[in-house]
Amino acid sequence: MNVETYMTELGQRARTASRLIARADTARKNKALAAMADAIDASREALAAANAQDMQNGRDKGLDAAMLDRLELTPGRIDGMIEGLRQVAALPDPIGGIRDMNYRPSGIQIGKMRVPLGVIGIIYESRPNVTCEAASLCLKSGNATILRGGSEAIHSNQAIAACIREGLEAAGLPQEAVQVVETTDREAVGRLIAMPEYVDVIVPRGGKGLIERISTDARVPVIKHLDGICHVYIDAEADKSKALNIAINAKTHRYGTCNTMETLLVDQAVAADILPELADHYAQLGVELRGCEQTLALLPNINAATADDWDTEYLAPILAVKVVADMATAIEHINRHGSHHTDAIITENYTKARAFLREVDSSSVMVNASTRFADGFEYGLGAEIGISTDKIHARGPVGLEGLTSEKYVVLGDGQVRA
Amino acid sequence: MNVETYMTELGQRARTASRLIARADTARKNKALAAMADAIDASREALAAANAQDMQNGRDKGLDAAMLDRLELTPGRIDGMIEGLRQVAALPDPIGGIRDMNYRPSGIQIGKMRVPLGVIGIIYESRPNVTCEAASLCLKSGNATILRGGSEAIHSNQAIAACIREGLEAAGLPQEAVQVVETTDREAVGRLIAMPEYVDVIVPRGGKGLIERISTDARVPVIKHLDGICHVYIDAEADKSKALNIAINAKTHRYGTCNTMETLLVDQAVAADILPELADHYAQLGVELRGCEQTLALLPNINAATADDWDTEYLAPILAVKVVADMATAIEHINRHGSHHTDAIITENYTKARAFLREVDSSSVMVNASTRFADGFEYGLGAEIGISTDKIHARGPVGLEGLTSEKYVVLGDGQVRA
Repeated sequence: MNVETYMTELGQRARTASRLIARADTARKNKALAAMADAIDASREALAAANAQDMQNGRDKGLDAAMLDRLELTPGRIDGMIEGLRQVAALPDPIGGIRDMNYRPSGIQIGKMRVPLGVIGIIYESRPNVTCEAASLCLKSGNATILRGGSEAIHSNQAIAACIREGLEAAGLPQEAVQVVETTDREAVGRLIAMPEYVDVIVPRGGKGLIERISTDARVPVIKHLDGICHVYIDAEADKSKALNIAINAKTHRYGTCNTMETLLVDQAVAADILPELADHYAQLGVELRGCEQTLALLPNINAATADDWDTEYLAPILAVKVVADMATAIEHINRHGSHHTDAIITENYTKARAFLREVDSSSVMVNASTRFADGFEYGLGAEIGISTDKIHARGPVGLEGLTSEKYVVLGDGQVRA
Repeated sequence: MNVETYMTELGQRARTASRLIARADTARKNKALAAMADAIDASREALAAANAQDMQNGRDKGLDAAMLDRLELTPGRIDGMIEGLRQVAALPDPIGGIRDMNYRPSGIQIGKMRVPLGVIGIIYESRPNVTCEAASLCLKSGNATILRGGSEAIHSNQAIAACIREGLEAAGLPQEAVQVVETTDREAVGRLIAMPEYVDVIVPRGGKGLIERISTDARVPVIKHLDGICHVYIDAEADKSKALNIAINAKTHRYGTCNTMETLLVDQAVAADILPELADHYAQLGVELRGCEQTLALLPNINAATADDWDTEYLAPILAVKVVADMATAIEHINRHGSHHTDAIITENYTKARAFLREVDSSSVMVNASTRFADGFEYGLGAEIGISTDKIHARGPVGLEGLTSEKYVVLGDGQVRA
């Protein structure tokens, strides 16, 4: 069978299954999630064997150490999948919830009911545990899913898919509610993102290159996460100890995450007081600083920043540092050079805090808190399918609600339009 | 200058203006709207002269009577534009509103702030009053706009644009916040929908053909309204008088609107009691019925429906009628043949009402009310830029809120991630 026919059939089955999943009640969805957890627990050997095959192929193909690490399904990661499924089962069911039922002068009563999106296509790279995570979030939010993992994880993903199907069947739900693409042909992705009749939205998870390619070619909406060029701005009226703590945490808590600070902006009024002390801390932690001219005047031993540094997501122990004239200049820099992800001001000034919150055009805007908090779990969403850098539909950390829509419900007693 | 350069410059100016409009306070936006109303009131002669030129060109080009009617700016329609601007000024400002500020265990406090989308491109056909309507809604919701009207209305649109610029200037807002494309070159549309760096969302208003073309070619999100194939299902436990009133109102209140019923579904248990009486009413009102086989058995004088009838938006005094075995069959028919726009059940049965609301996958689902209520004004949105048949971002009638997004705001006291 050719790939196009295969994907079309997958799409048709997903569309049919989506109608059944949409009306499944909370108890049934939770039963399926619990049964998936049990199936994974009972299949540890099969999962390990499948993963060993992927790891061997990966080593033969010369995958680098970081990729092999992401590919590995250790016993701890299998525990993590099981725990994750149980946590998703424990989350409140968003589907069917009705808000804002109000009467109108015509006598009709109108409100909004939360509903699934329909069919969600997920495209991801090496980590096989994403298969389980994404399937569970889509199921809980009443959606059918088509999952396309990396070719290097194909055996692991198929083994996880078997456990997922077992769980769906145990709860009396259609197995086609979660389908894992069985071919590694790249054409499968091209077809998946171009079937609006069967797929309602695509969530790509992976590097910026993958996501840009998918966004450009997709014929369906894409909930996308591009880069995280996050800023901390230390205002003239910052509390010094908060500023030091947050600047260090936002850069050094983890280097490879999208909510890590990549550029530090410091108000010129406090630069001389704060930067040398901060530079000592960074030096001890092995962070390379790249400064603007005014920064270099205070820290003569660091490297000079080039124009590119202001637009770079390092994902590494490197930090660009710029001294700015005032908050307006800081906001202008952030809105121009940032990636509209997460940006923070450190200040004790009420009016500046309020203006910064309003004027910075990012999915998370913070006052006196580390950018590292931008995360679905820290925000209380209970789960996270990703962080959206879009403005349309879902913005910032995306939990179950981002995988849903709303419809209007209208209750009447026979009203007609006059 | 070539069209691509012209549109790029329009986009750059809109992007710059959008940052100023986003932070404009409510009083300033309302002042601009009031000044636009005054400018239109003071420019009645210029508007009439520009419109007369478009009307003459239209007649010379042989536009049909319906198009010429839509193109005409009568004194009443000019009054309507002025009144519309004042109504939009009176609506609550959605921008900057914060909801759900809650504390998290880490001590940070998190909520969501409503923000503009940025730059909105509107593409529409002959009605020049849309220029005013769309500009006012985008301005009130803090967005910059690029408007591309039909070439047949170019003089009217430019005359309205002059009044809009006058209003913006009077309030101290940038004139580039609302730009009306000055070329009638079709390439301008192609460029407008393919500049994600300058345009955040496209709202096309017009026929299905236009909207499908734009959706296919767009490289930015599109809030689209395709067709309205709306159903009324008369359940076995319907109140007969409500059923008759709603079935007549939903079809005959207006024929050309998207929320008009196009297919009537009747439960077989009540078809013999209801259909003949209803058919008499429709006959008196000049509505042509096209029935399924069971309908024909009860109404032998009407035409037979063909397979195409179940998928047709007539926008005319024609109604497809089908007798169904039960509610499940009705829901199946609606989800398969409808356009997910607006569908209603007439029933006194609580459990069936509840199931219909949950299971019908449409932007508006109604119990015992006419589909004609699906409208931004009837729903209390205060205004309507269109009705979305999408599930992503905005669904159903789209008012000011549909032109906005939300960002997370995080307030802390120096918290760092542990």
